[in-house]
Amino acid sequence: MTQLIPMKQSRTIQTHLVLPPDINTMETIFGGKVLSYIDEIAAITAMKHCKNTVVTASIDSVDFLSSARVGDCLELESVVSSTGRTSMEIYVRVHSTNLLTGETKLTTESFLTFVAIDAAGKPTPVPGIIAETEEEIRLYESGPARREHRKQRNLMKH
Amino acid sequence: MTQLIPMKQSRTIQTHLVLPPDINTMETIFGGKVLSYIDEIAAITAMKHCKNTVVTASIDSVDFLSSARVGDCLELESVVSSTGRTSMEIYVRVHSTNLLTGETKLTTESFLTFVAIDAAGKPTPVPGIIAETEEEIRLYESGPARREHRKQRNLMKH
Amino acid sequence: MTQLIPMKQSRTIQTHLVLPPDINTMETIFGGKVLSYIDEIAAITAMKHCKNTVVTASIDSVDFLSSARVGDCLELESVVSSTGRTSMEIYVRVHSTNLLTGETKLTTESFLTFVAIDAAGKPTPVPGIIAETEEEIRLYESGPARREHRKQRNLMKH
Amino acid sequence: MTQLIPMKQSRTIQTHLVLPPDINTMETIFGGKVLSYIDEIAAITAMKHCKNTVVTASIDSVDFLSSARVGDCLELESVVSSTGRTSMEIYVRVHSTNLLTGETKLTTESFLTFVAIDAAGKPTPVPGIIAETEEEIRLYESGPARREHRKQRNLMKH
Amino acid sequence: MTQLIPMKQSRTIQTHLVLPPDINTMETIFGGKVLSYIDEIAAITAMKHCKNTVVTASIDSVDFLSSARVGDCLELESVVSSTGRTSMEIYVRVHSTNLLTGETKLTTESFLTFVAIDAAGKPTPVPGIIAETEEEIRLYESGPARREHRKQRNLMKH
Amino acid sequence: MTQLIPMKQSRTIQTHLVLPPDINTMETIFGGKVLSYIDEIAAITAMKHCKNTVVTASIDSVDFLSSARVGDCLELESVVSSTGRTSMEIYVRVHSTNLLTGETKLTTESFLTFVAIDAAGKPTPVPGIIAETEEEIRLYESGPARREHRKQRNLMKH
Ligand SMILES: CC(C)(COP(=O)(O)OP(=O)(O)OC[C@H]1O[C@@H](n2cnc3c(N)ncnc32)[C@H](O)[C@@H]1OP(=O)(O)O)[C@@H](O)C(=O)NCCC(=O)NCCS
Ligand SMILES: CC(C)(COP(=O)(O)OP(=O)(O)OC[C@H]1O[C@@H](n2cnc3c(N)ncnc32)[C@H](O)[C@@H]1OP(=O)(O)O)[C@@H](O)C(=O)NCCC(=O)NCCS
Ligand SMILES: CC(C)(COP(=O)(O)OP(=O)(O)OC[C@H]1O[C@@H](n2cnc3c(N)ncnc32)[C@H](O)[C@@H]1OP(=O)(O)O)[C@@H](O)C(=O)NCCC(=O)NCCS
Ligand SMILES: CC(C)(COP(=O)(O)OP(=O)(O)OC[C@H]1O[C@@H](n2cnc3c(N)ncnc32)[C@H](O)[C@@H]1OP(=O)(O)O)[C@@H](O)C(=O)NCCC(=O)NCCS
Repeated sequence: MTQLIPMKQSRTIQTHLVLPPDINTMETIFGGKVLSYIDEIAAITAMKHCKNTVVTASIDSVDFLSSARVGDCLELESVVSSTGRTSMEIYVRVHSTNLLTGETKLTTESFLTFVAIDAAGKPTPVPGIIAETEEEIRLYESGPARREHRKQRNLMKH
Repeated sequence: MTQLIPMKQSRTIQTHLVLPPDINTMETIFGGKVLSYIDEIAAITAMKHCKNTVVTASIDSVDFLSSARVGDCLELESVVSSTGRTSMEIYVRVHSTNLLTGETKLTTESFLTFVAIDAAGKPTPVPGIIAETEEEIRLYESGPARREHRKQRNLMKH
Repeated sequence: MTQLIPMKQSRTIQTHLVLPPDINTMETIFGGKVLSYIDEIAAITAMKHCKNTVVTASIDSVDFLSSARVGDCLELESVVSSTGRTSMEIYVRVHSTNLLTGETKLTTESFLTFVAIDAAGKPTPVPGIIAETEEEIRLYESGPARREHRKQRNLMKH
Repeated sequence: MTQLIPMKQSRTIQTHLVLPPDINTMETIFGGKVLSYIDEIAAITAMKHCKNTVVTASIDSVDFLSSARVGDCLELESVVSSTGRTSMEIYVRVHSTNLLTGETKLTTESFLTFVAIDAAGKPTPVPGIIAETEEEIRLYESGPARREHRKQRNLMKH
Repeated sequence: MTQLIPMKQSRTIQTHLVLPPDINTMETIFGGKVLSYIDEIAAITAMKHCKNTVVTASIDSVDFLSSARVGDCLELESVVSSTGRTSMEIYVRVHSTNLLTGETKLTTESFLTFVAIDAAGKPTPVPGIIAETEEEIRLYESGPARREHRKQRNLMKH
Repeated sequence: MTQLIPMKQSRTIQTHLVLPPDINTMETIFGGKVLSYIDEIAAITAMKHCKNTVVTASIDSVDFLSSARVGDCLELESVVSSTGRTSMEIYVRVHSTNLLTGETKLTTESFLTFVAIDAAGKPTPVPGIIAETEEEIRLYESGPARREHRKQRNLMKH
């Protein structure tokens, strides 16, 4: 029988200051920088959950709802939202805060899929999850629908 | 009337060596590193096309089909695939090559949307595109369908 | 009268994966890398508290109790532990976790002092703090003793 | 008999955005940053050609004819221009483009020599080249004169 | 009997330009950046002295007396100031210079302890030091007092 | 009359540990990394001498005589070797040391030309130099011959 692990055990938080090397000529952060923060925190969450090495299999579409500027603080939060046999879906939410006013905005949210890899480089089974809070249950229950949507999306790309 | 610019004028190529800082404990490149290369080349293509500053509005789902290892070479190619009033959709394709064997594999492909921004920080109109080659025409003609799909996707996220 | 802000409002968490560029020839993380993470998270906490720009005035002695290796995860947590007129003392605690075994060890803890700076570059007053939990009260009440110790330490350096 | 490979097979293109961390206090890019881009693209070209690991043996004199600023785009192009027994001479040309005006200027051009290295760390033979276009033939035919010049240059350095 | 090595043999100097990625929103360098430079130069000095791998065991309190701005030059100097059985105490002094006026200020000074590590990862004996100049003798003779102070400091932290 | 400044006043030293991100798949440092260190130290020397902003005008040919590996220490030394009206020629010498054996080898030496730039971005006069030691005098006296050689070299490039 599959082992089950509470979602809160791999929940991860990350806080970054937006610095001059991360910005474009509009003085706002590069989308690519945010994506690489998202991938890093999601990989940590996946590894905490499966206690194995992982690789990024896919990232669902990401919408950048607001920008962050030099001196703002980005706060990322991630949680395992669904699991398959060897894959884990991770949900990441990103807020930015203007530290001088305290104002906080949603920057983006995203779902990524990671696969656990054993020492021989092959996919290996992962534990399942136990959802406890209301938000966790909502994420958990909408997992199969997202999985279905993911299977269909590539049919029409180009 | 809108100005029209051939797609080939903003076509961009980028080649990177995969280096030790870019890799995880499986010795393969981080998904986040590839995403940040994708965002950088797409931003250059968008700026070449609209001759303005741009910001990343969204990135469509990305599937990582094969991994790249230290010493491999990543080759990215990007082109404007569709335009709106102030937005540009950019198509990016990434291959990795094992330089010792010459073997090349498709790593991933992705569509991103950028918005042109004027000096006051507001969205500003962009030129349209002229598709010339067969591949350009296929990308161009499937643009409206992708745009439609993008509008619908957020309804079911969680 | 000075404004008082609960310590929990500026509490900050940061999680990092230890990567190849951060390590020495022993495959363990550089002390300097840990110190720069400590300074970054403490600066974020200080800015959240005073809603102003800050500069690092000092860092108290740091003992590295255990090392972290490539693939481990570093978790930092920081909180304002005491305040003066224009200065804030920040307490930072660093744990490292072996993600494959789940084993967690204390890497180090440290106190830093930051000074709030106004637009003219001059020290400017900061709000006080309200300690609520037991740990917060202990940190708060031991603040004056640390401040006293700090004043005396430079007398004997060399 | 030596294998011969068309020059176009290892031709490489790289495009970079000039970003804030790459610039000096004049807001123009550091010469050292351009040199390290030149070395990277030339190494990729050399490895593509010889399908082996390579080391930089030398770089000929480099003149920086014009500068590039934040937000400009640097485009590098490289090709094997001549080969010896174990060494390859690589030609690199760098242009910078102001993305807002579309204006393009020659930044610099350079010749580098790389040596192919086998698993034991020793120089190992490389294939020859086939020049096809007019520019390739010019580069190829002027190779022996540059090689001669290189041998003589060290006699007078200091 | 322990081997003795003159302090001047491992004396190390480092010069850095303060660049845009190293600075905060006040345009002054991050304390964390200075700390990581201090750790790097001290590690080089310790390795030069003991001809072994080293790890940072601790850094004594650091006061930042003045700030450095973009375009300034930071000059660090480090020397072994005292040795134990397997540990070495390193003294680091940091000056910043405004290159346009030539004005130089003391930024900070610090003592760090490094431990020599053998191939099995265990602390291993280090040579002693010979102090020759007046400054070297003062550093050497005040070593035992600093060591004593270090042992007592942790008793009162929190 | 031109102001004259002793060469020793702008002499600069830099020491770097070779780290994992700086190396290729042969575990030796990239030529491009060494070139960017050379440009950085030479720029510092030039700015110390002329107390102005500078740009790299050219770098003479560089031969890499021996390689450096992870854990080695690179030591760079630079000095103004000759001056023109607005340009300064800088001599840089690079050694690498194996810290475990103490063995030191010459990695490369190079001459670069920097031009002093005023606030309007135009070349501006620089002070002359006073050579004092034997090595300084040799560098100084061979300056005009190098300058002559530099003028002729571009005639035959390709
Ligand atoms: C920190 C700094 C602003 C203090 O300036 P100052 O002229 O001494 O200012 P003041 O005497 O008014 O002191 C301001 C506060 O700083 C505190 N302070 C000053 N030096 C300190 C030190 N070394 N450690 C801890 N606190 C210190 C004072 O106690 C005072 O606190 P209070 O207002 O809560 O009572 C100044 O030393 C500085 O700019 N240092 C460089 C900071 C920097 O750039 N750091 C990054 C790397 S170099
Ligand atoms: C380049 C290197 C491998 C040459 O080693 P070597 O013992 O001189 O080898 P060889 O005499 O067999 O020469 C091998 C080839 O290199 C060429 N070569 C050697 N030094 C050269 C130089 N400075 N410039 C151009 N070509 C050079 C030779 O002409 C020969 O070419 P060929 O086989 O086509 O005729 C050696 O000097 C080295 O390892 N240098 C350091 C390289 C490095 O790590 N660079 C990165 C930064 S330090
Ligand atoms: C430093 C370390 C090796 C000491 O290990 P240990 O089991 O305490 O070893 P020992 O008791 O044999 O002590 C070895 C020496 O270190 C000294 N030492 C230990 N902790 C120290 C500290 N916090 N500060 C200063 N010196 C310390 C001891 O006094 C002893 O010195 P001596 O041989 O000259 O008398 C160990 O704590 C460690 O690995 N820490 C992490 C180091 C690291 O990775 N730093 C980078 C960032 S986390
Ligand atoms: C270097 C630069 C300022 C020279 O501009 P210019 O219009 O040729 O200026 P001038 O003709 O007045 O020459 C100024 C000095 O530079 C010297 N110079 C110009 N080009 C040079 C070259 N390629 N190599 C060496 N010296 C050079 C001249 O000899 C003259 O020296 P002097 O005053 O001592 O006699 C200009 O070419 C430039 O901006 N280049 C780009 C620099 C840069 O950004 N480098 C970083 C990476 S791209």
